[in-house]
Amino acid sequence: MSFGQYLQDVCDGAEGAIACSLMGADGIEVETHRTDGPSDVDLKSLLVECSGLLRSARDATLAQGAGELEELTLRTDRLVAVARVISPDYFMVVALRPGGNHGKARYLLRIVAPKLRAEL
Amino acid sequence: MSFGQYLQDVCDGAEGAIACSLMGADGIEVETHRTDGPSDVDLKSLLVECSGLLRSARDATLAQGAGELEELTLRTDRLVAVARVISPDYFMVVALRPGGNHGKARYLLRIVAPKLRAEL
Repeated sequence: MSFGQYLQDVCDGAEGAIACSLMGADGIEVETHRTDGPSDVDLKSLLVECSGLLRSARDATLAQGAGELEELTLRTDRLVAVARVISPDYFMVVALRPGGNHGKARYLLRIVAPKLRAEL
Repeated sequence: MSFGQYLQDVCDGAEGAIACSLMGADGIEVETHRTDGPSDVDLKSLLVECSGLLRSARDATLAQGAGELEELTLRTDRLVAVARVISPDYFMVVALRPGGNHGKARYLLRIVAPKLRAEL
C-alpha cells in the first residue's frame, strides 16, 4: 500500500480531518493527503513547526527521564493537531477542525504507524 | 479557594495523576500538588521544559494562522502530561501515569481553568 493511501485512510476515518502527513523529523514533508479545510491556515508551515516541537519534546522528555515521546497533541481555537512518532526519523501528523473526532484520529494513527514503519 | 486546593482537586479526580502544577509562562512554578509517583522522573525540570514547549507551540500556531493555543498534550512510554493555558502569563499542567485517565484530567483542567483565572 502506498504512503498516500495510509494518510487518506486516516483522513477518511476521522471526522473533521483537514490533512494527514508523513514528515521527516527534520521538518521535510514526505507526503500529505489533504481534504477541504480552512484555507487561511498555513498547513505546510504548521507541519514544519510541528516537527520542531516534536524534536524539542522528544529531547525534553528523554533528558528529564520521562521516557520516549510517542505522541504530541496541540489544541487551538481553530484546529487540533495530533503527531505520532513512527521512528527516530519520521512522524505522522493529522490536523482536524476543533469539533473533529480527535480520539478516532489518535486511534487510527496508532493502527497505521506500525504498517507505515514497515514500509519505510 | 486556594490554588493548592484546585490542583489537588485535579489530582484527586483523575485516576493515575502524579502531580498538578500552576506555572508561569516563564517556566517558574507557582504551586504544585504531588501524589505518589515514579521518583526517577525529574518533574520540576519537566515542568520547566513543558513551559518552553508551550511558549514555542503558542508562537508557532499564532504565526501560522492556526489560532490561539489552548492545550498541549505529551505522551511518552512513561507518562502523559496535559498542559492548559490559563492566561497569557499562566498555565496548568497535570502529569499522569500512562494508564491514567487523561480524558478526565483534560476535563478537570477545563473546568478548573476559569476558576483559577479569576483568582490570579
